[in-house]
Amino acid sequence: MAKNACYAQSGGVTAVINATAAGVIETARKYPDRIGTVYAARDGIIGVLTEDLIDTSQEPEEAIAALRCTPAGAFGSCRHKLKSLEESKAEYERLLDVFKAHDVRYFFYNGGGDSADTSYKVSQIGEKLGYPVTCIGIPKTVDNDLPITDNSPGFGSVAKYVAVSVREAAFDVRSMCKTSTKVFVLEVMGRHAGWIAAAGGLAAEVPGDAPHIILFPEVAFDERTFLERVQSSVEDNGYCVIVASEGLRNGDGSFLSEAGTRDAFGHAQLGGVAPLIAGLVKERLGYKYHWAVADYLQRAARHIASGTDVEQSYAVGKAAVELALDGQNAVMPVIVRKSDEPYQWEIGTASLADVANVEKKMPADFITNDGFGITDRCRRYLSPLIQGEDYPPYRNGLPEYVTLKNVAVLKKLDSAFELKFK
Amino acid sequence: MAKNACYAQSGGVTAVINATAAGVIETARKYPDRIGTVYAARDGIIGVLTEDLIDTSQEPEEAIAALRCTPAGAFGSCRHKLKSLEESKAEYERLLDVFKAHDVRYFFYNGGGDSADTSYKVSQIGEKLGYPVTCIGIPKTVDNDLPITDNSPGFGSVAKYVAVSVREAAFDVRSMCKTSTKVFVLEVMGRHAGWIAAAGGLAAEVPGDAPHIILFPEVAFDERTFLERVQSSVEDNGYCVIVASEGLRNGDGSFLSEAGTRDAFGHAQLGGVAPLIAGLVKERLGYKYHWAVADYLQRAARHIASGTDVEQSYAVGKAAVELALDGQNAVMPVIVRKSDEPYQWEIGTASLADVANVEKKMPADFITNDGFGITDRCRRYLSPLIQGEDYPPYRNGLPEYVTLKNVAVLKKLDSAFELKFK
Repeated sequence: MAKNACYAQSGGVTAVINATAAGVIETARKYPDRIGTVYAARDGIIGVLTEDLIDTSQEPEEAIAALRCTPAGAFGSCRHKLKSLEESKAEYERLLDVFKAHDVRYFFYNGGGDSADTSYKVSQIGEKLGYPVTCIGIPKTVDNDLPITDNSPGFGSVAKYVAVSVREAAFDVRSMCKTSTKVFVLEVMGRHAGWIAAAGGLAAEVPGDAPHIILFPEVAFDERTFLERVQSSVEDNGYCVIVASEGLRNGDGSFLSEAGTRDAFGHAQLGGVAPLIAGLVKERLGYKYHWAVADYLQRAARHIASGTDVEQSYAVGKAAVELALDGQNAVMPVIVRKSDEPYQWEIGTASLADVANVEKKMPADFITNDGFGITDRCRRYLSPLIQGEDYPPYRNGLPEYVTLKNVAVLKKLDSAFELKFK
Repeated sequence: MAKNACYAQSGGVTAVINATAAGVIETARKYPDRIGTVYAARDGIIGVLTEDLIDTSQEPEEAIAALRCTPAGAFGSCRHKLKSLEESKAEYERLLDVFKAHDVRYFFYNGGGDSADTSYKVSQIGEKLGYPVTCIGIPKTVDNDLPITDNSPGFGSVAKYVAVSVREAAFDVRSMCKTSTKVFVLEVMGRHAGWIAAAGGLAAEVPGDAPHIILFPEVAFDERTFLERVQSSVEDNGYCVIVASEGLRNGDGSFLSEAGTRDAFGHAQLGGVAPLIAGLVKERLGYKYHWAVADYLQRAARHIASGTDVEQSYAVGKAAVELALDGQNAVMPVIVRKSDEPYQWEIGTASLADVANVEKKMPADFITNDGFGITDRCRRYLSPLIQGEDYPPYRNGLPEYVTLKNVAVLKKLDSAFELKFK
C-alpha cells in the first residue's frame, strides 16, 4: 500500500535546490502505487516540527517542472539544526509523531552536513520509537564542503556566476585602467573554504588574465606580499582584479571582516572584506579602486546556472526516491566522477553516517605556492562543474520563476510544538 | 576618394558599447570606395591626442562580429573631458592635426553628454582651422541621461541585470525569512538619477513582490518613513527587499555614502550605501540583514544583456556611418519610440548642439507619491528596454569574449603631446 513521503529543504538555498525538488516529486509521481502524497515541509525542518506541511499533489505538473528553472527554496528553508539525540530528544520524537500522523514513511532531507546528520539520527531512532522511517539525505550546498560526493549540487552554479562575473568585470576594468580604476575587488562567499573564490580563477585562460589575485580563507592574509602582488600586477598588466573570500583571515585566525569597521552611525559593521581590501590598496598604493560584494546574487543566479549543476541537482533528487523505493535507508545519493575530460559522472551512494558532520576541505595542492591562485589540478576539478548553460524561460524580459500555491495540509496532532528560535 | 574614419569610446563602458563598435566598423567596411581605414583611438580620446591609433582593418571579420557579444571597451576608454575651446584650444588643434596626418575625415565619438559636446566643438572649428571633419556622436551611457533619444544604449542591459538580480535575490530571501535574513539591500549605480534603481522595480509583478522599497537619488532619505516602511514590509510579507541608489542623499543634499564611514585602518570609506542602510535597519529594527553591491558587475554583464539594447546599440553605430556618408555633420543618431506596446522604435537624428551638456532627469511622475516605488508610467517606459535575451557564445562554460589584436598605427607626427592626467 502506498505510503507518503516528506521532502524538506535545509540551510542556505541555492540556484538549483528546486531542481532537486523537481527530481524528487516528479520521480515519486511515477510510482503512485508505492508513494502516496509527497508532502513538503514549510520552511524546512521547522515545518515538520510544527506540523506545517504542504501538499505538493495540489501543484500541477507544469509547476513542478518549472521548479527545475527556479532558484531558492520553493517550500522555504531554515537553519534550525537538531542537536544530539540527548539534547534534542523531544524534537526527534516530534518529527516521528508528525510522520506517523501523516503516514509518512519516506523522509527526503535536502541539505548539507547538518541535515545528513539529522537524517541519519532519525533513521536510527525510528525503529526504537516504534515508527521506522526511510531517511534519505540529498546533497546541497554552495560551499562544496560535503564529503564523498564529487561536488555539492548548488556549488557549480555559484562557481559559474563568479567566474563569469570576474571575466566581465575584468574586461570593464581593463578598458578604463589607463586613466581610471586600476584595482577591482570582488567579494564572494566562503566562510571556511575557498571553493567559491577558487572558481573565480577559471576566468583566466592565458597569462595576465584576471583574476590576478585570489584571497583564500585557507591562506592567512599577509599585507606586504599582497600589496607587492597588487603593485606588480598593475605594473605588468595595467590593472589588478582580486577575488576575495568573505572568510579571509589574519595571521592570528581572526576574520578580516570583523576587524572593527564602524559605519556612520558608529555601529560595528559586519562583512565587507572587499571595501577593506580596496581601502588598503588605496591607502598604501594610491590606486583608484572599485569593489563589489555579490552576496545572495551569486547563489540565487539561476539565470546563469551551470547546466551540469542543474542536471546533477535533478539527478540526486530522482536517485533519492529510487534509493528509497529500493529499500535503502540512511544513505545519500552522491556524484561520482568517472573522468575529467570529457567530464563523466554517475550517481553513487554514500552512507549518511559517513557524510554527517564531515567537512571536505580544499586540497592544499589546489592553491598555488604563492597562495594567490589556483593550480592546474584545481582547474581540472572545477572546470567541468561550470559547463553548460541552462537558461530559464523569460517573460517580459525577466526569468519566469514559479511561485507554488503551497497548500497547507490539515493538522492532525492536538499539540503545538514550541520551537526555540527567534 | 576614400577617406579614413576614427572611432573612439568615451567614459564608463557598458555591456554593449562594443556592439556599437561592431555596427560602425561593419557598416564602414561595406563602403570601401568611400571609407578607407577605420582607426580606433586607444583609450578613448587620449588615443587621438597622443596619436595612439589602432588599425581595425587588421581585425578579421569574425573578431569584429564578436564585438557584438563582448562587454566593455575593446579599444579602451577614458574619462578625459575636453573643456571649452578657450581652455583646451591646444587639445582641439591637436585632434585636428592627428586627423589630418592620418587623413581622417570622419570622427565617430561614442559616449555621453560630454562626448557630444566635444564632437560638436570639433565639428565647428574644423573648417576654421582648415581641416573640416565630419563629426557624428553616438549615444552610450548606463546612466540613461542623454536627452532626445528614447533611451541611452547601455542602460537597457544594466536595467535587465538589476531587475533579474532583484527577482533572484528576493526569491532567496523569501525562502529563508522565517528564521534568517529579513532585509536585503542591493546597491546599484546612479549618482545623479534613479533610472537604474527604478529598473529594479520591474522585478515586481504582483502586490507584495520585491522590491518593496526603492531609494532614489531624487528623493531625500528620511530615516523615519524609511524604517516604518521596512517594518511594515516585514510584517506584511515576511521580508523586505530594498534597491538603493549609490547616489542616495540626505535632506541637506549630502551623499549618504560620504557620511564618514571609517574602515578598520581608520580611513574614510567611500561608497557603500548598502551597508549603511542595512546597518541602520539592524540597529533600529533588529532585523537580520544581508547586502550586496553590484558595482561593475552590473554594467559589464553581457551574459544577461537586453536583446533590445544590443540591437539598438548596433543600430546607432550603423546609423552613425550612414549619416556621415549622407553628408550630415554634428549630429547623433537617436532612438525614437513609436509605441510602448508592442515596443516599436526607429532611428532618428538629433543635433549635437541640442545633446551636448543636457542631462535628462527622471520625470517626477515616474516615482510613486510615497517616494519608494515606480509608477505604471515608469514601468511602461522601462519594460520594453529589457526585453529579449541576447546570449553570447560560450566555451568551457564561460562566455567567449573577444580580445582584439589592437595593432598600433605608425605615428606620423613629430611632436608628442603632454596630457594633463595622472
